[in-house]
Amino acid sequence: MKVTIFGKGNMGQSIGKNFELAGNQVEYFGSSDRAEKLGDLVIMAVPFGALESIANQYKDELKGKIVIDISNPLNFDTWDELVVPADSSAAQLLQSWLPDSKVVKGFNTTFAATLQSGKIGDLPTTVLLAGDDQEAKGTIKEALAGSPLRVFDAGALKRARELEATGFLQMTLAASEQIAWTGGFGIVE
Amino acid sequence: MKVTIFGKGNMGQSIGKNFELAGNQVEYFGSSDRAEKLGDLVIMAVPFGALESIANQYKDELKGKIVIDISNPLNFDTWDELVVPADSSAAQLLQSWLPDSKVVKGFNTTFAATLQSGKIGDLPTTVLLAGDDQEAKGTIKEALAGSPLRVFDAGALKRARELEATGFLQMTLAASEQIAWTGGFGIVE
Repeated sequence: MKVTIFGKGNMGQSIGKNFELAGNQVEYFGSSDRAEKLGDLVIMAVPFGALESIANQYKDELKGKIVIDISNPLNFDTWDELVVPADSSAAQLLQSWLPDSKVVKGFNTTFAATLQSGKIGDLPTTVLLAGDDQEAKGTIKEALAGSPLRVFDAGALKRARELEATGFLQMTLAASEQIAWTGGFGIVE
Repeated sequence: MKVTIFGKGNMGQSIGKNFELAGNQVEYFGSSDRAEKLGDLVIMAVPFGALESIANQYKDELKGKIVIDISNPLNFDTWDELVVPADSSAAQLLQSWLPDSKVVKGFNTTFAATLQSGKIGDLPTTVLLAGDDQEAKGTIKEALAGSPLRVFDAGALKRARELEATGFLQMTLAASEQIAWTGGFGIVE
């Protein structure tokens, strides 16, 4: 499968590594690149603030494609709130900006280090996906089948609210040094 | 320390067990009991729907006391939303009903079985506390110091929103049988 990743940072690379390990072809684009021929799976590994302009720029090319939003839309000045409306989420906003794409929330509850290692403590790193297109989530799960990551279905796209709240909570625990950025929420079956 | 628990169900008993293990004196009251002489620490181990009437009934006795809200205010008909306002939480509502008490959110991200065993997989069961009164959270942590539970500070009471979202998410993973009710989010340091 061809995977396009917007964002060359830690998160983009750590996610891309897993898709590569699973045998997919991964292409990265930075903020100064003009991406050509997007893959069927497009990952927005950029800060929340950059999502809308990328969505607008590539709206036509993203039609019909699976678009993964990994953002944690924190107010990074205060670390005390999310900047999205309380009854919505970054992923739901992205879906509104890309009505003809299949938006899936994922990878926002896994720190980069746990995506790199494929482990969180002794547990496999688990990616939680929320999205309204069941087939899209299945495609992502299949594409990752050869990676160390475990993939769970967190439900409809509206569950992105809870995924973003969980991501936020986990980040505050790390920022307050109660956990390390190599730790966080491991999922016990 | 004297601990009063409203609610004799699984959660109440599993929480109470840990306070007892740590050497505290625990008293339980069911819905048909009239509680006398409340402890300094009062745990509301009741469904969200029962919180307001208990708060009203014991408003005077609860003045100045630490009151722990453990509820997960799901819509249990749909399992698709919380029944509290999106920009608030059960704990913040309880604080508004008990303005003179020190409300702390906690124990809502730990399934009863993991409170009973003190473990989630190979990890210690971790209780996340959110509340505006730093001393109150410290008192709870101290009271549990002889139990198997680990206690982390999740921040101000407004973080109850994220705790309730995380509890909700965890419950949907169990309800969809992707995890067991003996599993869930373990916290790796």
